Amino acid sequence: MSELRQNLATKEWYVIATERAKRPHDFTRGKKKPPPLPERVSDCPFCPGNEHMTPPASLVLEDASGWQVRVVANKFSAFSPAGTTERRVNGIHRSMAGVGIHEVIIERPEHNLALPMLTDAQMHLITQAYRARYREAMKDPRIEHIILFKNYGADAGCSLAHPHSQMIAMPLVPTHIRYRIEEARRHYDDMGHCVFCHMVEQEKKENERLVTENEHFVAFCPYACGTPYEVWIVPKRHISSFGNTNDEELYALGLILRDITSRIYYGLSDPDYNYVIRSVPKDEGDALSLHWYIKMMPRLTKQAGFELGSGMYVNVTLPEENAQFLRELKLPQTA
Amino acid sequence: MSELRQNLATKEWYVIATERAKRPHDFTRGKKKPPPLPERVSDCPFCPGNEHMTPPASLVLEDASGWQVRVVANKFSAFSPAGTTERRVNGIHRSMAGVGIHEVIIERPEHNLALPMLTDAQMHLITQAYRARYREAMKDPRIEHIILFKNYGADAGCSLAHPHSQMIAMPLVPTHIRYRIEEARRHYDDMGHCVFCHMVEQEKKENERLVTENEHFVAFCPYACGTPYEVWIVPKRHISSFGNTNDEELYALGLILRDITSRIYYGLSDPDYNYVIRSVPKDEGDALSLHWYIKMMPRLTKQAGFELGSGMYVNVTLPEENAQFLRELKLPQTA
Repeated sequence: MSELRQNLATKEWYVIATERAKRPHDFTRGKKKPPPLPERVSDCPFCPGNEHMTPPASLVLEDASGWQVRVVANKFSAFSPAGTTERRVNGIHRSMAGVGIHEVIIERPEHNLALPMLTDAQMHLITQAYRARYREAMKDPRIEHIILFKNYGADAGCSLAHPHSQMIAMPLVPTHIRYRIEEARRHYDDMGHCVFCHMVEQEKKENERLVTENEHFVAFCPYACGTPYEVWIVPKRHISSFGNTNDEELYALGLILRDITSRIYYGLSDPDYNYVIRSVPKDEGDALSLHWYIKMMPRLTKQAGFELGSGMYVNVTLPEENAQFLRELKLPQTA
Repeated sequence: MSELRQNLATKEWYVIATERAKRPHDFTRGKKKPPPLPERVSDCPFCPGNEHMTPPASLVLEDASGWQVRVVANKFSAFSPAGTTERRVNGIHRSMAGVGIHEVIIERPEHNLALPMLTDAQMHLITQAYRARYREAMKDPRIEHIILFKNYGADAGCSLAHPHSQMIAMPLVPTHIRYRIEEARRHYDDMGHCVFCHMVEQEKKENERLVTENEHFVAFCPYACGTPYEVWIVPKRHISSFGNTNDEELYALGLILRDITSRIYYGLSDPDYNYVIRSVPKDEGDALSLHWYIKMMPRLTKQAGFELGSGMYVNVTLPEENAQFLRELKLPQTA
């Protein structure tokens, strides 16, 4: 018999397959290692020497050897900068211009350096770029909400192999985000504390689903979640907006992000994945009830009609077993 | 510049790529026709002669030649019948047993007959089986909500090629469904009418996104939706629960379901798809504000980090163009 579990923060129920739970090798069995990528690809728009193939950079972090991180507008943008946020009402139809900012954060000049291979300093440059662009985009009065995310691999919706993340700054707050905010606020009203702060405390105390932690972040497999090997990376300090993460925390974020992507890379044979930074809409300011975090989702299973129809997910693994596996994994020495 | 559109019923905003909108051939180009399936496969558990390979049937519709539709418990069930719906509270964790009903509706004895190839009478048997099992499951006092759905093709999460649909009857109402109910109710409170009835009326009047209709159903591409070639099939009469669909409507449903799956099959080179019957939770009874419908979603694109992070979808096609294409398609004569 399966178990239904409710996530304390989102109030969503998940189906957890307790009996026939899959093990790591069920996902990695028969998987072929793709051929290694070269350090540079002559027609890759993100490789050094091809800077003319992208729109001009909005941010460049460099050292003596050249640029290290480069941020450019997305050429195939879902949102573009010109326009107003006025709603157009036409009978029953409501629309607005797709105003916003859609940028690509090119994480490294090297075509073939995935996050697990980066140095502490290189990781720090990436998290610095994230925050710099987040803060800058928030200054635009039309922007209400920002999503920072990474698509890694074709199954995760990634079309360009060169290591990159993306930022989309939107002129509205998606309903999905509104609902989550309401649930977290209701928890705060009931209990008098931020539900995420409480989860972090409890996960540390129970020590059953922890994967790793450092001075400023905790990473754990949520008790109730829908994706095999899903990991949440949560700041220990109560910070609602990603933009308010301080320098020291930003450095620690780079380290734990490399740590988690490494465990997934080595433990699960380099699967495709998405991660997303869930921060608060501008309108929520320094909300006491909200807390930013990273949701990391390896793409090991497919969504089918049940998930699309109910919004409820079937997890074919046990979060406790996932956490133990990721926690106990021996990682190779990093640079 | 893209356009953001809000769905009147769900209040969800979608990004519609108006400029670089993809055309049907963008999805079908280079697609190879798979080899035709045989009528019977010796080790397929859903083929005649292999009935011992499945759990016993909960419903059999037959004629002189043998069974026509057969419903059995899902062997790899997400929910199982024994147990209670009591919530277990353990510190911050809430869980319950995965109590429910998970059945497979085997649509035909023939391994290779997809919906577009069926006769009127064969389609009617399938919709009859849907309703019979829906009504039966609703009698279980522990069941609160039912999802009927079809996964067609591997990309849609289908693991067995033999034509089948599924029913999951659950002991709770997913949060996602709760939110939709609230939005529809709010619309009813504001406007005094069912938002779906109103959409049907408007879509018929505007005649821009209609795909087809018959006496009892309308099929259209929603003005705001996230999936290329997404189609909603909505009953013209206000019916909140699928279980209350009458015999005549059930017959008409079979015809329009074959019509829509045919247009997708022939027009888009037989893509994978999911459809789901969105009905109301038991608790909502004959709600004035709610209306059942079928959401049909061809699986032509992938969800990436932005979608997973925001719950907001980017549609790379125009619903108006999709509707025109599907509407004007010449279908081969059906049996």
